Amino acid sequence: MNTSRTERVLEALRGMGLTQMLIVDPISIYYLTGVRVEPFERFYALYIRADGKHKFFLNRLFHVPEDVGVEKVWHTDTDPVMEIVAKYVDRETPLGVDKDLKARFLLPLMELKAAKGFVNASLAVDLTRGVKDEEEQQKMRAASAINDRAMAEFKKLIREGVTEREAAEQMLDIYLGLGADGFSFEPLVAFGANAADPHHAPDDTPVCAGDSVLFDVGCIKDGYCSDMTRTFYYKEISEEHRRVYETVRRANEAAIRRIRPGVPLMELDRTARDLISSEGYGEYFTHRLGHFIGLSEHEYGDVSSVNAQKAEPGMIFSIEPGIYLGGDTGVRVEDLVLVTEDGCEVLNHYPKKLEIIGQEG
Amino acid sequence: MNTSRTERVLEALRGMGLTQMLIVDPISIYYLTGVRVEPFERFYALYIRADGKHKFFLNRLFHVPEDVGVEKVWHTDTDPVMEIVAKYVDRETPLGVDKDLKARFLLPLMELKAAKGFVNASLAVDLTRGVKDEEEQQKMRAASAINDRAMAEFKKLIREGVTEREAAEQMLDIYLGLGADGFSFEPLVAFGANAADPHHAPDDTPVCAGDSVLFDVGCIKDGYCSDMTRTFYYKEISEEHRRVYETVRRANEAAIRRIRPGVPLMELDRTARDLISSEGYGEYFTHRLGHFIGLSEHEYGDVSSVNAQKAEPGMIFSIEPGIYLGGDTGVRVEDLVLVTEDGCEVLNHYPKKLEIIGQEG
Repeated sequence: MNTSRTERVLEALRGMGLTQMLIVDPISIYYLTGVRVEPFERFYALYIRADGKHKFFLNRLFHVPEDVGVEKVWHTDTDPVMEIVAKYVDRETPLGVDKDLKARFLLPLMELKAAKGFVNASLAVDLTRGVKDEEEQQKMRAASAINDRAMAEFKKLIREGVTEREAAEQMLDIYLGLGADGFSFEPLVAFGANAADPHHAPDDTPVCAGDSVLFDVGCIKDGYCSDMTRTFYYKEISEEHRRVYETVRRANEAAIRRIRPGVPLMELDRTARDLISSEGYGEYFTHRLGHFIGLSEHEYGDVSSVNAQKAEPGMIFSIEPGIYLGGDTGVRVEDLVLVTEDGCEVLNHYPKKLEIIGQEG
Repeated sequence: MNTSRTERVLEALRGMGLTQMLIVDPISIYYLTGVRVEPFERFYALYIRADGKHKFFLNRLFHVPEDVGVEKVWHTDTDPVMEIVAKYVDRETPLGVDKDLKARFLLPLMELKAAKGFVNASLAVDLTRGVKDEEEQQKMRAASAINDRAMAEFKKLIREGVTEREAAEQMLDIYLGLGADGFSFEPLVAFGANAADPHHAPDDTPVCAGDSVLFDVGCIKDGYCSDMTRTFYYKEISEEHRRVYETVRRANEAAIRRIRPGVPLMELDRTARDLISSEGYGEYFTHRLGHFIGLSEHEYGDVSSVNAQKAEPGMIFSIEPGIYLGGDTGVRVEDLVLVTEDGCEVLNHYPKKLEIIGQEG
């Protein structure tokens, strides 16, 4: 158990009036215990409580280190697992549950009256995870440093006739060659009109002159994720597309300039959105400005028009405005930023100046 | 919408006293609608009800075909999505919910009193999915046929000094070359003592003479999964290991011989377990005999000592007994079987006779 992180979570639970919580997100469990298990459909949970009587609920099929610093409670595939859990939960107080706890575990706990009410208490874990400690910040910098270098290589993959899929298929080797442990998510490679779909999966579309070439990519290193988007143009760019690109880049930079402790995250979203709207593209920026990231590529917390949460030193999130013109082009420019005491540190260093790639000479 | 599958699910719901259900498993939604979306943390659900007023709850970021044959209800990242859902749910009757519905969606629905109680109704979907229709059976046969051919190739990867990881890394290309669309799960490759961990992930262990060489592998083809395990021995085999192997193989075959409509699945598990126990290895067969499979590699339903469910024509599940001797060796032999009107069809055809691989000449 990482006692300082566990204490921070318990402190947050206290603030919610809770003294016990059942955590099931494998990444949150890794964050608190250093143990990583892929439970598939099996029950896997860390139960923490204010009096320190934590329990680690494990299926016999899971392999975990001998000494985790928390008492293990084992079950098999044929045990009535929620009855076992109910034995350890304090029936007299409400139980905080993980937002990811599934109905097939939650409904039986309710039926067993395992606790005095059930509350989604994930905020206690998620807000704690949202503020990275020094060790985590270092790992986030390292993952983004690899991503910067990888972007320079990815750009070179775009040659006459190459398809999105062909480019995407070469990315894992590039990451591994640069020291990454793998993807933090499947790379998005989108050319031209395909880039107007923010979640487009690479397909057999070949690159054509005048296309935007959008790479939304990230790697994982020592458990931590990077995530960056750059949009290039292939061979040429129309005046309209240049205006779109510059609008997105300026929105990215304007939002980043506003970051400092205390600023509501919704104001960052508004800053980028207002700038894009002022150029007439407001309706084409169809998603929130950013998301938190760390051990997972998408962590709790976002930079959206409705999130009044204030920036705090240690938070790391993305700033990724975009403009998506259906059937025509799409542009997104994304960096990860770390909130510091007096502003922010941008974790990505790959340039954002418009680059026309694939030109002769 | 696939109306015959939806009707089967509604019929099963009626049997549970339910007239409405919220389905969130993306694979179940694909099964019923033909639409495949990866929602990540966003809300994505198909709501079906006996009176036919089905709704498809979609985030604006999801891309789905124009005509799905069910009314779409859209939301954005900033909408109060569960309030939207609650508007469509019948408050006067209980709501069946998907077993995978997460606490962060279920608890708000409860707070909104969106229905007269909430019941895990996944059985209605899962039992329906457990009995494959003719189209599905054909696709399952095709995926397993590729897996048989792949196994013959995988065996050849085992040469002096090769590591588990090196072998595993070549498998995707082999599958793709044989016409598969990808892995149905990350291949398990385990040598010697590593094979004593049923969930061992391939690492840098090289193969040594006398090692068991366990491949638990599967591919996906047209959406359907294969899954087969074969255990070879490298260069030589001890008498004890031969006895272990033959015990597992016989347990696999004995269980398969018992399959016919009406047999409780627990009896299949017992048949294999009794045989293994009679040879003195009972305590080393540490998991259930099998699991259902189809659109997912692990579907609802298992072949375990506590499942009294009876075999029905159209069911497809694995039969995979194993013996795991910690620090020494591990053997598992797994086939997929399709229950037929008078017995079963084994979908895998790769031989189960003990093979010593890597021998000279």
